[in-house]
Amino acid sequence: MISQYYLKVKKLDFTTGEALIALLNEEEAYHFGIHAGDKIGLTWRGKKTVNVEANLSDKRIKPGEIGLYEEVWQKYPVETGEIVEVNVLGRPDSIQAIKKKLLGHHLNEADCQAIINDIVSNRISNTEITYFVAATYMYPYNRDELYYMTKAVAETGDTIHFKGQVVDKHSVGGIAGNRTTMVIIPIIASLGLKIPKTSSRAITSPAGTSDTMEVLAPVTFSIAETMEIVKKTGGCLIWGGGFNLAPSDDRILKVTYPLSLEPYDKMIVSVMAKKVSTSVNCLIIDMPVGETAKIPDMATAIDLEKRFVYVAKQFGIKIKVLKTKGIDPIGQGIGPTLEARDVLRVLQQKEGRPMDLEEKSLELAAELYNLVKNIGMAKARKEVALALSSGKAWSKMKEIIKAQGGQEKIDSEGIELGNVTHSIKATKSGEVIKTDNKNINALCRILGAPLDKKAGIYLEAEYGKKVVAGQSIYTFYASNEQRMALALAAVDKLKIFTIK
Amino acid sequence: MISQYYLKVKKLDFTTGEALIALLNEEEAYHFGIHAGDKIGLTWRGKKTVNVEANLSDKRIKPGEIGLYEEVWQKYPVETGEIVEVNVLGRPDSIQAIKKKLLGHHLNEADCQAIINDIVSNRISNTEITYFVAATYMYPYNRDELYYMTKAVAETGDTIHFKGQVVDKHSVGGIAGNRTTMVIIPIIASLGLKIPKTSSRAITSPAGTSDTMEVLAPVTFSIAETMEIVKKTGGCLIWGGGFNLAPSDDRILKVTYPLSLEPYDKMIVSVMAKKVSTSVNCLIIDMPVGETAKIPDMATAIDLEKRFVYVAKQFGIKIKVLKTKGIDPIGQGIGPTLEARDVLRVLQQKEGRPMDLEEKSLELAAELYNLVKNIGMAKARKEVALALSSGKAWSKMKEIIKAQGGQEKIDSEGIELGNVTHSIKATKSGEVIKTDNKNINALCRILGAPLDKKAGIYLEAEYGKKVVAGQSIYTFYASNEQRMALALAAVDKLKIFTIK
Repeated sequence: MISQYYLKVKKLDFTTGEALIALLNEEEAYHFGIHAGDKIGLTWRGKKTVNVEANLSDKRIKPGEIGLYEEVWQKYPVETGEIVEVNVLGRPDSIQAIKKKLLGHHLNEADCQAIINDIVSNRISNTEITYFVAATYMYPYNRDELYYMTKAVAETGDTIHFKGQVVDKHSVGGIAGNRTTMVIIPIIASLGLKIPKTSSRAITSPAGTSDTMEVLAPVTFSIAETMEIVKKTGGCLIWGGGFNLAPSDDRILKVTYPLSLEPYDKMIVSVMAKKVSTSVNCLIIDMPVGETAKIPDMATAIDLEKRFVYVAKQFGIKIKVLKTKGIDPIGQGIGPTLEARDVLRVLQQKEGRPMDLEEKSLELAAELYNLVKNIGMAKARKEVALALSSGKAWSKMKEIIKAQGGQEKIDSEGIELGNVTHSIKATKSGEVIKTDNKNINALCRILGAPLDKKAGIYLEAEYGKKVVAGQSIYTFYASNEQRMALALAAVDKLKIFTIK
Repeated sequence: MISQYYLKVKKLDFTTGEALIALLNEEEAYHFGIHAGDKIGLTWRGKKTVNVEANLSDKRIKPGEIGLYEEVWQKYPVETGEIVEVNVLGRPDSIQAIKKKLLGHHLNEADCQAIINDIVSNRISNTEITYFVAATYMYPYNRDELYYMTKAVAETGDTIHFKGQVVDKHSVGGIAGNRTTMVIIPIIASLGLKIPKTSSRAITSPAGTSDTMEVLAPVTFSIAETMEIVKKTGGCLIWGGGFNLAPSDDRILKVTYPLSLEPYDKMIVSVMAKKVSTSVNCLIIDMPVGETAKIPDMATAIDLEKRFVYVAKQFGIKIKVLKTKGIDPIGQGIGPTLEARDVLRVLQQKEGRPMDLEEKSLELAAELYNLVKNIGMAKARKEVALALSSGKAWSKMKEIIKAQGGQEKIDSEGIELGNVTHSIKATKSGEVIKTDNKNINALCRILGAPLDKKAGIYLEAEYGKKVVAGQSIYTFYASNEQRMALALAAVDKLKIFTIK
């Protein structure tokens, strides 16, 4: 394809707000080998050259014409009728790399960098990103590709440089509740380790750690502010989205929605790139495994573990992957405020606190502490348990909340919940033989979580335990009758507990 | 995913011209499991229900709101602030089918119908079509899928019902020139067979049969007009794009451009669906095989032949696939007017006519005639040769041109060519050991073909023949100096002949 043409300018009164766009006749563009989204260079009056993005139209622009949006002709004076030289700046290298992957070949480091760079710099279109996602969905990465991609993503993102030992805990998610992070971070920080935790918000779940932490304190900070908080307290519980740690994620995520694909490789790359960018060098991964969790079976879990471990090694990160049981929710509250209450109940060691949340948090904390200190699990368990029971962890949590600008005086029972409630009773007696995470998530979303922090579900029954007909098995919380009505209408369709 | 929500109306002053669009908050939409392009049903004031397409915006619309475009609130009165019930009409079945293919499974007939129907009816987005194309590119169709897809495409398109025997000739293309169709149709029609030929326009080549025929007569007709022309003359040479024979092609084609993928299965489906729709029951396929042709090697050609033959059999179409040599152009003129001149020179049996075009046309015509009459190739060759040499074919061509509303008085030498010409001389003596079709195409496009019908290249040298330094090996034709300058600038980069 030769890459130079002359076209006649047509000034358009379209505006994009910022982007420099030129509109070409669709059919002609194809003859020129120009695709929507291609970058083209325009030269006129012998000198001026401006790079714009090509959009195509089959009606608005005749062959031989090029339409310029306001942003272009305001910034670079030109008159309708003038002849401009059009230079195709060539297809990005990433296109060849994507095609290579589509043909089942493996990508080298340069390929991976080209793809990630061009996604981040908007040089390739969503169609091309879709081919990329489709190809990686069909041909999983080999170890080299996993490493190259993680490196490329980390290099295109912000980085936060902490000195010395930086520890972290990450949960693969998929289990309702599971707010162990908010218990573990203060425990570990209270033991003198540096654990700057960045978390995500919920995408498809009722609450992410950030949504829940936000009930107690702000979670969006600049890099400088974050360093300050960590310097003060040794830990933090902030929203990773406040930085730009893996800038390619958003564009990739968008094209995964339509088919709701969840490629595991994309997850590994995204998680590990963020760890690399935040200079984590000692990491525990909580990987819940269960039918309705993100990781459905052990075989998948073991394969994922190997891949996580391989990538971590490449970056000198000490790692341990813990395959935990993912068959029922951790804690009883689902939804930001209800989960925050569970967390505080554990940290404050209140009567009737959710023991499953406490136990899982202690076990993960012990594993992380042992991974760092190498003192054996028995000693590690004792130390983290003491940190919690002695109140050290709770004081540390209050430090962190204060450092993040939250309310100093705080108590689990002071947290305000949705004021419209309705409790669901067991229709028969028996044992709970199944808990459906997906239906819990769906019902919580109907109730308004996570956008409405006060919405959610409080679970009174539990997997493996007996219930008697007529007892309350869970309670809905909402902020208005409308949402409650919708949830009640859906109860039968979205069964949470199977009682037998 | 539960599929019912309440949102507060915000009337927008956006207009689309026709489509009914509702704008949702992007983040919230994802929580609801609604994707851009999804069809959603809106109910308000207890009764009114209107189905609209969901678009997403992260800024214009707040969570809890739904923005309605003018088309919606003008047609279905509603006020800003009113609460509407939003029902997700569910994801199209085709989505599951595409995902199935993406996972490497084969599609059944219902899957294929769902995908093609939803592409044609715009129920799925370009992103989803891209996943479909990517999947079929990676997992070629099995025979059933080829058949189901062809059937689905044919059923979604227009159909033209001719009675009795309908013969046709199709070229897979990729070779410059190769205007045998315009020689074969009048020959076959002059022998009393019914051959209603619909052709395409050039997409990436310098001229399609329709572009070339258009030099002599109009090529765009309604179905009724076409039947009339064929009734009169037994044949026609019209543009298939005038009908809607394979309506899914255009949307699929668009997403194949960015990576310039050319899936063979897509071609087979598209070609055979059109034959089925035009009630063809006897078909010759010209399949040029050569390094720079569309079919690069014999192995590929043989596989394609099998697939064409299988699909044809399913529809009771008698077929023969001819694997022809695709190493150099057929005829000397490249570009609409130059190719039309070659065709007329052959039909008029002029001195110095391109014999390779004549010979290939006669051979294909004989194969087609024999496929129909089953009289043996020797007799068939004699009859088609006579039809050409006797002038019967030329009279038939003039009938067809007249029936299509072209100029009655016509002669090969009367065709007007581009008035800016420049001939390229051999820099050394030797034999032409390679002709590059791709570079011929690129240069013709630079000269302005096929949009500028008078632009093109006339080849004086030929593959396998000797040339002497200084002799003209080809001549450029353009309509303006600008295009000529661009072509001359590209000559060295885009070598046509390799002389050794």
